[in-house]
Amino acid sequence: MTPQENYHDWLRDAHAMEKQAESMLTAMSSRIDNYPDLRARIEQHLTETQGQLKLLETVLDRNGINRSVMKDATSKMAAMGQSFTGMFASDEIVKGAISSYVFEQFEIACYTSLIAAAEKAGDVASIDIFKQILAQEVAMAEWSLNHIPNVTDQFLLRSAADGVEAKK
Amino acid sequence: MTPQENYHDWLRDAHAMEKQAESMLTAMSSRIDNYPDLRARIEQHLTETQGQLKLLETVLDRNGINRSVMKDATSKMAAMGQSFTGMFASDEIVKGAISSYVFEQFEIACYTSLIAAAEKAGDVASIDIFKQILAQEVAMAEWSLNHIPNVTDQFLLRSAADGVEAKK
Repeated sequence: MTPQENYHDWLRDAHAMEKQAESMLTAMSSRIDNYPDLRARIEQHLTETQGQLKLLETVLDRNGINRSVMKDATSKMAAMGQSFTGMFASDEIVKGAISSYVFEQFEIACYTSLIAAAEKAGDVASIDIFKQILAQEVAMAEWSLNHIPNVTDQFLLRSAADGVEAKK
Repeated sequence: MTPQENYHDWLRDAHAMEKQAESMLTAMSSRIDNYPDLRARIEQHLTETQGQLKLLETVLDRNGINRSVMKDATSKMAAMGQSFTGMFASDEIVKGAISSYVFEQFEIACYTSLIAAAEKAGDVASIDIFKQILAQEVAMAEWSLNHIPNVTDQFLLRSAADGVEAKK
């Protein structure tokens, strides 16, 4: 396969990954009741993710990738993303916060690879878009990791209290 | 639940996670043929992971957690770890390198939460062990992310060449 062919497959993967992110962030934000900081940051990142999807669609168009065909494609990368869905479905906020961080890191790894592939495939015009998206993923990942001790502390306090919902 | 009860559950999870890491790293290192740098770093981290398991077992013992009972326990966290196994089974080196990075980040998030929980549960004696393990996971994650562009480049070159195995 040529670098372009591999690169185009990975662009489809990236789009599938962001669609996955959109549905997971939507599900997670709607479920959180007692952790308003986490919920607010997830809602912010959901909005960012919807913007990232629009940016990726300009990249797909520039590369002549038919988006209506792509919708039917189930890529290996999407399957990888789906394996996180089960994590997000966890009814425990600490594991949800961990999963959210891990998914961001999955996206960071994918864009890091995609930037290298765009260079080899000669799609220099898209590299700034990937770097822009990557910066949002890095910011979300950093926030998530910094917030994990706080979620853990809050969960342990609520879990030890009578008549208080701790898990979401 | 008391902080101690939650903490003890998470200690069992951490042990299950490292057992998962051990089996995934073993499988991955045995499969890689053409990417010697990645293989060598994975083998190094497999040795580190085996040391981490021994350290965790001292923590379990200090907390009076019966390890023979634990072997039968399948925790939610182990199930999360298992969702990565499918990724590692990927026959494509770029996705393998991404998965390996993502699993390290999963471990980083878990130890970050565990350190907060150990403080709340009063197991101060174990915190240095978790920090020591965390430092190894961070080093492996940093190496993995830095190496992703190189693996991507090598894969694209091999994939474009006739009669050359690219995917492992």
